[in-house]
Amino acid sequence: MNTQNEWYTDLAMEERERFRGIDQEISGVIIEKLDETRANMHITKVEIKNEHGAAVMRKPMGIYFTLEAKELSEDTDQSEVFAEILADYIESLIPENAKNILAVGLGNQEMTADALGPKVVNKLWITRHYSKEGLSSMIPGVMAKTGMETAMIVKGVTKETNPDLIVVIDALAARSASRLGTTIQITDTGIWPGSGVGNHRNGMNKESLGVPVIAIGIPTVVKTTSLIKDMWNYLAHTFADSEETRELGIKMQQLCEKQWQSAAAEMPIQQAGCMYVMPKDMDERVVRLSHILSEGINLAVHSRK
Amino acid sequence: MNTQNEWYTDLAMEERERFRGIDQEISGVIIEKLDETRANMHITKVEIKNEHGAAVMRKPMGIYFTLEAKELSEDTDQSEVFAEILADYIESLIPENAKNILAVGLGNQEMTADALGPKVVNKLWITRHYSKEGLSSMIPGVMAKTGMETAMIVKGVTKETNPDLIVVIDALAARSASRLGTTIQITDTGIWPGSGVGNHRNGMNKESLGVPVIAIGIPTVVKTTSLIKDMWNYLAHTFADSEETRELGIKMQQLCEKQWQSAAAEMPIQQAGCMYVMPKDMDERVVRLSHILSEGINLAVHSRK
Amino acid sequence: MNTQNEWYTDLAMEERERFRGIDQEISGVIIEKLDETRANMHITKVEIKNEHGAAVMRKPMGIYFTLEAKELSEDTDQSEVFAEILADYIESLIPENAKNILAVGLGNQEMTADALGPKVVNKLWITRHYSKEGLSSMIPGVMAKTGMETAMIVKGVTKETNPDLIVVIDALAARSASRLGTTIQITDTGIWPGSGVGNHRNGMNKESLGVPVIAIGIPTVVKTTSLIKDMWNYLAHTFADSEETRELGIKMQQLCEKQWQSAAAEMPIQQAGCMYVMPKDMDERVVRLSHILSEGINLAVHSRK
Amino acid sequence: MNTQNEWYTDLAMEERERFRGIDQEISGVIIEKLDETRANMHITKVEIKNEHGAAVMRKPMGIYFTLEAKELSEDTDQSEVFAEILADYIESLIPENAKNILAVGLGNQEMTADALGPKVVNKLWITRHYSKEGLSSMIPGVMAKTGMETAMIVKGVTKETNPDLIVVIDALAARSASRLGTTIQITDTGIWPGSGVGNHRNGMNKESLGVPVIAIGIPTVVKTTSLIKDMWNYLAHTFADSEETRELGIKMQQLCEKQWQSAAAEMPIQQAGCMYVMPKDMDERVVRLSHILSEGINLAVHSRK
Repeated sequence: MNTQNEWYTDLAMEERERFRGIDQEISGVIIEKLDETRANMHITKVEIKNEHGAAVMRKPMGIYFTLEAKELSEDTDQSEVFAEILADYIESLIPENAKNILAVGLGNQEMTADALGPKVVNKLWITRHYSKEGLSSMIPGVMAKTGMETAMIVKGVTKETNPDLIVVIDALAARSASRLGTTIQITDTGIWPGSGVGNHRNGMNKESLGVPVIAIGIPTVVKTTSLIKDMWNYLAHTFADSEETRELGIKMQQLCEKQWQSAAAEMPIQQAGCMYVMPKDMDERVVRLSHILSEGINLAVHSRK
Repeated sequence: MNTQNEWYTDLAMEERERFRGIDQEISGVIIEKLDETRANMHITKVEIKNEHGAAVMRKPMGIYFTLEAKELSEDTDQSEVFAEILADYIESLIPENAKNILAVGLGNQEMTADALGPKVVNKLWITRHYSKEGLSSMIPGVMAKTGMETAMIVKGVTKETNPDLIVVIDALAARSASRLGTTIQITDTGIWPGSGVGNHRNGMNKESLGVPVIAIGIPTVVKTTSLIKDMWNYLAHTFADSEETRELGIKMQQLCEKQWQSAAAEMPIQQAGCMYVMPKDMDERVVRLSHILSEGINLAVHSRK
Repeated sequence: MNTQNEWYTDLAMEERERFRGIDQEISGVIIEKLDETRANMHITKVEIKNEHGAAVMRKPMGIYFTLEAKELSEDTDQSEVFAEILADYIESLIPENAKNILAVGLGNQEMTADALGPKVVNKLWITRHYSKEGLSSMIPGVMAKTGMETAMIVKGVTKETNPDLIVVIDALAARSASRLGTTIQITDTGIWPGSGVGNHRNGMNKESLGVPVIAIGIPTVVKTTSLIKDMWNYLAHTFADSEETRELGIKMQQLCEKQWQSAAAEMPIQQAGCMYVMPKDMDERVVRLSHILSEGINLAVHSRK
Repeated sequence: MNTQNEWYTDLAMEERERFRGIDQEISGVIIEKLDETRANMHITKVEIKNEHGAAVMRKPMGIYFTLEAKELSEDTDQSEVFAEILADYIESLIPENAKNILAVGLGNQEMTADALGPKVVNKLWITRHYSKEGLSSMIPGVMAKTGMETAMIVKGVTKETNPDLIVVIDALAARSASRLGTTIQITDTGIWPGSGVGNHRNGMNKESLGVPVIAIGIPTVVKTTSLIKDMWNYLAHTFADSEETRELGIKMQQLCEKQWQSAAAEMPIQQAGCMYVMPKDMDERVVRLSHILSEGINLAVHSRK
């Protein structure tokens, strides 16, 4: 991933929001609000249907469900309901005859914001060793600790154990801080290069692994580059709206992208290396979210007819 | 701590830097650069000598050593040297007849950036149970998990076990991202209310605990509020310096504090709760730093004559 | 605890079983089977009513509930029912006007069989910091790591925060391997010196802490000394029962205690230090048991009228 | 592994000791004491040279180094020396042109006695991702958690990443409690079926993985079945030696294997499932041992010319 790209997001929903306000449709991208009566949850389906849509959205062709609820990482009694809803959408992407499913928990167990995948996988009901059919799982680790590309590790195990489907769980990077721990993305496109908190260099998808790949992710960090651009835009807008500061606001809005880039590239924060922004209580949120995700996957995988 | 205060820092050094550029001394605050030949490390001693200095610096009277080295959280072979230097400065603050020393690791073990204190304490050589004299330690936990003020827990154990000195280790909040994992602060003033990553509500110092308290801390997070103000100032300065954007830069500099505050207070990042900024590899940095700190404390405590 | 004493057990139930086969009652010890219809669980109440009973039972005067079910540490769907039953018995020992309750998780978090207490406490709903009344908790650690007597740490925090009741959770040592992870003991006598996996040197009870203490424990280890004596008795009995080996069996039974002791004291296993016996899957059992215990305590504490 | 086999051991040394007292050599098995002046360490080389030796020893043909020192898991200042000695013996088994080495940490991270392999691997200096050549590592997990045979996971990753050599680290089962944490075995035969604390069903060796496999192991548990037989033999011997109990001792010695087996098979300990015996402080021993092993492997791999 280009970490200098302050607009990057792993979420198709956020990518689509770049075009908000523009009435015209994007050719090849279908966006649909879905009803959900069981909980106060906003569900959106983004479908990228052709190359044009993929180019505009900077994401592969396929289906992206986005489940949004502020209460997702709060301490509520709704976690069972959330898990059931999640299970339905996961199940809708599971190929009918998939019997052996390999769950892969991506990320670094020792880094709060990147531990979501391993934590989810640790709570799954693993059954394949009982009957030679069912759910298996792995936590491949991160390249800095294994010395190997994560995608190669998953590929090797896939070839050797022949699952019919891979379900990958990963912590994502979002553009907006309000999405941290409040949005679940489920997609049948797998993991594409450069995505995730840990910036997977190689993708993990049907093309590279030879098996369908469902990816489930939750944003746990915002890159500081996204944050700063967001703040700039917000302040420009706010200042422009107020009489006293209108001139400053307009000047800020008029600043061209090139000038912004050249100033931003030298910011002290950049020199301090790749920085992430996360809520102070991210550890507790990750525990709650991993509970909902693992329950959702358990239901989707084990309760199928 | 007032989380709306974007200028807050736990570091006396950074507080002092607010006045950079102003030649005049601050009455009651002595600042001194110390030589260190063993490693490429900048060492500064800030001494707050009276009430006036304390008010200006917003920190209690006492001595603050700051040890700065970019390599502190890198994978170098200098960690033993760093530990020796650290030991010297810690030892210089230990009262001569202190025999029983209680080390207290503050913070939340499950939160990467807040785990420094517990990780350090876990590596100390505990000796008090052998000879009734020596080093003891505790990890009091955080209020969200214990339901009790951390300061009360420490006070209770202090009263019951009568140490001659308390050494508190804590992760700090800095203003500048470049300080994350590269600066150690050692002070004989203990912990003051509102400091630390976890925002201790009550302080831990000689006054409240009845025993001298040395506090050792390393910044592991920057509050997003500090970061954004920093970025604003940096950009204002950069734009003012370039002909094309001078007018914008000057307008940004002219914005009055009140106007900034009122715009900043409503930023989306604020609505997402208290946010922290930290480097992507903070987990590894914390492991390395905890090794240096624990070695430094071990040397200071056990090698004294 | 005298680790040479192969008959030691933390369970009042097991102590009582020494006298099995003898019809006569023990004066001062009342034993009662209680009915439980909600689950297939054997519940026994042992009450030690006077000094004579305490001397014979080698346990303090008070009430000891024992809840036994083979499924306790298995992967069943009965855990909620077990938690409810547990809650009833805990609640029956909570003094009526107890508002502030301090839960203490004894043991070593990094040792599988000794981690029960800390794991339970980590799952409790802590409320005291919200309303100044409610549940608080602490994990005092073990003396090898803190350098301090665990009882002193708990005493200090108790004095400073004034709970009305202390609930201590601890892993116990049993005599019989079949009890590992299948028996819960709840008692109003607190922790007595030398009990628990970690052999607490000092007790924690109303006398020493000044507050009523409920202790909840589950056996997670058997001492090898108990095991070997058990095996000897079992083999003696088995051999005596079979015609071919009757003579050997009888000779084994006739061996006097003194001769056994002098042979056993030199066994190689003794020279290897204090040894524990535990099931291979103890880690998973401890996770399940800690879930049931924490739910039971949560229900007992938070659902009281 | 046949868990009913009370004589099972993962150590070639212990297997050889079955024949102690018998002067005659075992054809095909060479045993050699090696000198070591750097530390008080007993080093033995067992070489199984042919099928006959393999059948008698119940281990594959190859070289087995055994390094024994009581201080290995104690808190001494000799750990660096132990690591250097270990490095020499590991290096002697590394094929000359091995450039890419994959370290595999077998076992269950959450089970104290089985966590040795993962703990060692977590401390290795991983270099392969820097230069495409060097050390890589993986922690495959245990079948109960992954649902897959560990050997298949390792095989898949091996095929995909093509290391020249695999180094497997595992916790072992010993027969004698005195060996727990005091003996290191290094062998070029890899892992054979049924060995290790976790009883690997399939082996990991040159035959199955297509690459040379060095296995490094340390006993961390004794099976209770071994322990009980050991105790029985010890007591028989002790009683036979004393005049008062001679008759009992002789009768015990005369008990035939079949009678022992039929009595032992029904012992209550068997009904409690597979039981392990380990020292109370195994967690600390495993930390120290993992430090020595990882340092030894780091030296052997990275300091080679």
